[in-house]
Amino acid sequence: MGATRCFWGWGYEGAGLSAEEERALVERVRPLVRVAPEPIAAPTPEEIRVAPSRLRVPEGLASWCRVDDLDRAGHTYGKSFRDVVRALERRWDRPPDVVARPPDEMGVVAVLEWAARVDAMVIPYGGGSSVVGGVEAPPSDERPVISLDTTAMDQVLEVDRVSRSARIQGGVLGPSLEAQLRPHGLTLRHYPQSFELSTLGGWIATRSAGHYATLHTRIDDFVESIRAVTPAGVWESRRLPSSGAGPSADRLWLGSEGVLGVITSAWLRVQAHPRYRASAVARFATFAAGTHAARALAQSGLWPAGCRLLDAGEAALSGAGVGDAHLLLVGVESSDHPVEHEVARAREIVRDHGGEISDGGLAGSSDEGTARWRSSFLRAPYQRDVLVRHGLIVETFETAVTWDRLDAFVDAVLGATARALREVDAWPALVTHRLTHVYPDGAALYVTVLAPGHATDRLAQWDEVKGAVMAAIVGGGGTITHHHGVGRDHRAGYDDERPDLFAAQLAAVKRAVDPGAILNPGILVDPDIRRG
Amino acid sequence: MGATRCFWGWGYEGAGLSAEEERALVERVRPLVRVAPEPIAAPTPEEIRVAPSRLRVPEGLASWCRVDDLDRAGHTYGKSFRDVVRALERRWDRPPDVVARPPDEMGVVAVLEWAARVDAMVIPYGGGSSVVGGVEAPPSDERPVISLDTTAMDQVLEVDRVSRSARIQGGVLGPSLEAQLRPHGLTLRHYPQSFELSTLGGWIATRSAGHYATLHTRIDDFVESIRAVTPAGVWESRRLPSSGAGPSADRLWLGSEGVLGVITSAWLRVQAHPRYRASAVARFATFAAGTHAARALAQSGLWPAGCRLLDAGEAALSGAGVGDAHLLLVGVESSDHPVEHEVARAREIVRDHGGEISDGGLAGSSDEGTARWRSSFLRAPYQRDVLVRHGLIVETFETAVTWDRLDAFVDAVLGATARALREVDAWPALVTHRLTHVYPDGAALYVTVLAPGHATDRLAQWDEVKGAVMAAIVGGGGTITHHHGVGRDHRAGYDDERPDLFAAQLAAVKRAVDPGAILNPGILVDPDIRRG
Repeated sequence: MGATRCFWGWGYEGAGLSAEEERALVERVRPLVRVAPEPIAAPTPEEIRVAPSRLRVPEGLASWCRVDDLDRAGHTYGKSFRDVVRALERRWDRPPDVVARPPDEMGVVAVLEWAARVDAMVIPYGGGSSVVGGVEAPPSDERPVISLDTTAMDQVLEVDRVSRSARIQGGVLGPSLEAQLRPHGLTLRHYPQSFELSTLGGWIATRSAGHYATLHTRIDDFVESIRAVTPAGVWESRRLPSSGAGPSADRLWLGSEGVLGVITSAWLRVQAHPRYRASAVARFATFAAGTHAARALAQSGLWPAGCRLLDAGEAALSGAGVGDAHLLLVGVESSDHPVEHEVARAREIVRDHGGEISDGGLAGSSDEGTARWRSSFLRAPYQRDVLVRHGLIVETFETAVTWDRLDAFVDAVLGATARALREVDAWPALVTHRLTHVYPDGAALYVTVLAPGHATDRLAQWDEVKGAVMAAIVGGGGTITHHHGVGRDHRAGYDDERPDLFAAQLAAVKRAVDPGAILNPGILVDPDIRRG
Repeated sequence: MGATRCFWGWGYEGAGLSAEEERALVERVRPLVRVAPEPIAAPTPEEIRVAPSRLRVPEGLASWCRVDDLDRAGHTYGKSFRDVVRALERRWDRPPDVVARPPDEMGVVAVLEWAARVDAMVIPYGGGSSVVGGVEAPPSDERPVISLDTTAMDQVLEVDRVSRSARIQGGVLGPSLEAQLRPHGLTLRHYPQSFELSTLGGWIATRSAGHYATLHTRIDDFVESIRAVTPAGVWESRRLPSSGAGPSADRLWLGSEGVLGVITSAWLRVQAHPRYRASAVARFATFAAGTHAARALAQSGLWPAGCRLLDAGEAALSGAGVGDAHLLLVGVESSDHPVEHEVARAREIVRDHGGEISDGGLAGSSDEGTARWRSSFLRAPYQRDVLVRHGLIVETFETAVTWDRLDAFVDAVLGATARALREVDAWPALVTHRLTHVYPDGAALYVTVLAPGHATDRLAQWDEVKGAVMAAIVGGGGTITHHHGVGRDHRAGYDDERPDLFAAQLAAVKRAVDPGAILNPGILVDPDIRRG
């Protein structure tokens, strides 16, 4: 295992910002957003106080089940702003009673059987990177809690180079997955922001969106077949490139968020590493003009791997620009053929829509702008934790909407955000936005909030803001989540968005494999009637 | 409506082969496959004998419900070989008691309510082009039958040019859909072989595969949202370019084959017409060599619109070639940019895999080879009916499998087919094959059989062959259907292929919206327990 996970915030111990970096970050933010006079110290393991475990681990499972306070505290929450704040407040109100790390599928079966026997609930836990309350226990269900950590099942089991597919265990973290594929000359090329600390099974369960800004944006399209353990037994689909035989069985698992079972392995479509790459950065005077260029690119059939539109604030915050223009970062890549023609056409489209291509200006070379943005992207969760310690409200939210609504939608959502921040006295704040993924018929909007928090009730402040934002998103025709997932935090918006009859259908799907409502109760599906 | 549908075979009255074309076709086939001495005459409406309708149409529905023998006979079957033979034998054993053509969604609601009231079953019927027994009544369920024909709901309701999307009624046939989109400069560009006589709702319900040989091969990827009527009420999803909120609700409808409800409208992603096109035809000495080239193309990221590999027999039969080589037809198209570079790279890939590009040789120009193949493709169902009248067994089947298995799989499936044909005395026969769609991880295999049938028991002969073929497909790791659907004919293979627990989940999904098991009983889901 090597590195030790941080039990209260993002990442590994020692991998966060250095003291110097922390100081620089705070100084950079200070002119923009009110910073607390004194930062909160990170909690130490000695400060953890959790109620005693209510479960006695059966003998056969003891070697891979833990009941120590540190492991239990570390598995209490995901990694959202709410989660970090609660940990900084030294609050672990509803920790799992046991953290189980089954070494194999039989272990998963054993945990589910044990849970059924002792009337406990099981919360599947991959990298624990949920930012939507996806891995914490429900407040209103008093059953003991087992956090089923999948990360001991972390192997690439089989590689089929001919079909460019690989059978991979669900608990593998991003870096390990890529390291195991590399000797075969293959890559999954799926890089959500949580890449370092999220698992394949988690990506599938939450319909993760990754590297590609167009075309195959989600893990969904790379899933060839799935194997999972449910309370009713093992579920496994056939490996097929495509099938028209009834509704897709795999699609039930994509987005299932742990309520149907534990994804133990899957066949994934992998690919050759890109050999050809080209990129461009364009400046736009208005964000709307940038969205029109992004739309034209999304509808062009060029399918650029990168097509991210940063508003001026986001560009400045990330270091991709200096804040005087909105930036469209376009990247094309191929493992098979040179991409100059595609990029030339992309540049043409961008110029036709008023974009000013900046070669070698602005942020150094265009590639440099993209590289700076990427590095900032992956470091963002570490920076978030520092700023939260310094009293800020730091959170993001994301959605997607069709192009015809987008311009008005952006205005409405940002307007609602600003109004709500003012109303809770979290102003002046920095609110930046970007398009992260673009489709022929619409785009995903991502918003980052840095706001001054009250010393004692930042969570209440954010809850207010989040409620206003959800109302604006759902009311404006967007989705409650493009790729963060539903979890406990988005449940209300999800209920508004989905077809009512689908709620009944999904509940029936769950009951068919989890009649005891053991798995992640309250997520996606109302707690089973057996629990009242 | 204009043209009159043929009640016993494919297409419209008068649109089939001329006497001259019929003679030419039969003479072309005669040296290859034994033809009956005398063709069976097409049945006339006067020859129809069906049991009297058991239902009395309620007054409010009378203007669009029909109980005449012609309409009832015409809605008894789909359009498979089995269906045509039974019609030629003047057998309509289990016709619908009523053919209902609701003019609008309220009409659909009324039909479902009526069916529940009188304990009848409802079989959704679009263009009636099923080749898998998807629209016929189950033999073992004695309830009265209402065929719910959706084709009166045939309008494009709304076009969003900005998002390139259109809201379209489920009952529209292919040509009308395209004609309504054309004034907006848009196209769905979905051309299954049944295009002339299949509906949008049918495409969605059966996960139809169409124009594109790579990338977005299926209607699935073009569906933005769905509206449907179920016995439990109206089901409607939100229009979104992409969402990560729980499992995809729409994906339950894709492949639902009429068991959940009637798809009354959907938002579809449409697109600009292609302005740039280029194609190439390559000859291969072996089919396996051709598959390797097709695989390289599928994995290249070029995403050619066309990538069809015809074996020598198929090439000759369709007129695309003369039968001395296997042919790979490659086509690239774009609405946005010239495609010479893509085609040049595709040619390079093909040559690297031993393909001999034939410009202007073989079948005239390469475009001409493709054009001939396409024309033959769309005329094939009409030709099929002529050959069936002349005593032949004419049928197709299709599947998909991963590349690592493909070469052996083709041999096994073709071997099983030939053995089974010999065993039922349907030999010598012509068995041709092709790859219709290719994916990075596998391909769809399509097989056409022209075999000499016995005068009196062609259906029994084919049932034997079909059983052997299904066993070879499922045993070889393929899917029971890439795009024809499951229907009644593939049900056994489907049950072998799908995860057992998914069967329970799908049954639960159905019960949630159709507790009375009114809709298409026995399709995909076992008849509800209420029926025994």
